[in-house]
Amino acid sequence: MPINDEALDVLFRNARTHRNWLDKPVSPALLMAIYDLVRWAPTSGNCCPARIVFVVSKQAKERLRPHLDEGNVTKTMTAPATAILGYDLDFARNLPRLSPHNPGALDAYRKDPVLAETTAFRNGSLQGGYFILAARALGLDCGPMSGFDNAGVDREFFAGTSVKSNFLCNLGHGDPSALRPRAARLSFDEACRIV
Amino acid sequence: MPINDEALDVLFRNARTHRNWLDKPVSPALLMAIYDLVRWAPTSGNCCPARIVFVVSKQAKERLRPHLDEGNVTKTMTAPATAILGYDLDFARNLPRLSPHNPGALDAYRKDPVLAETTAFRNGSLQGGYFILAARALGLDCGPMSGFDNAGVDREFFAGTSVKSNFLCNLGHGDPSALRPRAARLSFDEACRIV
Repeated sequence: MPINDEALDVLFRNARTHRNWLDKPVSPALLMAIYDLVRWAPTSGNCCPARIVFVVSKQAKERLRPHLDEGNVTKTMTAPATAILGYDLDFARNLPRLSPHNPGALDAYRKDPVLAETTAFRNGSLQGGYFILAARALGLDCGPMSGFDNAGVDREFFAGTSVKSNFLCNLGHGDPSALRPRAARLSFDEACRIV
Repeated sequence: MPINDEALDVLFRNARTHRNWLDKPVSPALLMAIYDLVRWAPTSGNCCPARIVFVVSKQAKERLRPHLDEGNVTKTMTAPATAILGYDLDFARNLPRLSPHNPGALDAYRKDPVLAETTAFRNGSLQGGYFILAARALGLDCGPMSGFDNAGVDREFFAGTSVKSNFLCNLGHGDPSALRPRAARLSFDEACRIV
């Protein structure tokens, strides 16, 4: 196989969502390395709508704090880094460069804001999936979360832009001794069929 | 590193979206193996909204054909398999089993269909990202597409259910000689910042 069994464990089978963090920093170079992988994975028409703010400093963490659901405060404030995964509703402005073989794409999205928003949300979330697996591939643990005030985070971190927050993802080295038992998943027959 | 450099190439850096397929079938066991990886990757509150139909038989491909954008017909009809990635708007019915420590979740989603739809679309797309990388990890090439009539595919493949189509993904072994030059991506500074 192109990717060995241990790697499949690290990416998928043994990886867990973490809430408790070891006292081990995450370097800016490692955060940049995540994006250096994510950028290559596919999006519709190469639209690349994901925008990421890595919240690392104490000051920036304090700007995030008031917008977190209560149950997400401690794990986020103690994480070495928290990524705000967002998506740019005006991703289309980059299409003349990202998708030069499709010259009509910019106008098509500008004329149809609902299509632009759906495309940004779908592909920004797809890139969120790539982000979590890229972080794991580089040896980090992830703690993704939807429990926060999106409008508040948008005001604080994306004011004056066309970027909307999607979800948050704590990053660091998780404490495996603090993990809960793993929750169930749907079987193949519950989630899939072959026709 | 937990995952070696060659694996990062296979997953991210050298992997390409394919449109031309080698004459090499994809077994049902391999399709099931993709889901066996995807199922473990995280979703919000373990909601697991993704639903997948693997379209393999000639008859099923013909049911898909009329709903494809013209530019997607040949590559889809010649692909060994085409996955319809969907999301279940009523994913919450499984939460008593998938998220037993959060007994209020089922009612919270049932009372707020907009929250349920947003959650299903966000997390179903996140699982779509996991799906593409899981398929690559197992040695397959992917050709994801948004260019089709979602309502038509829903009528044909999800009638009488609460599942909505999200995107399509051709699966097989791509012909590397038919690849176009790779399109540009955004730089770290264009897509990210560290605060």
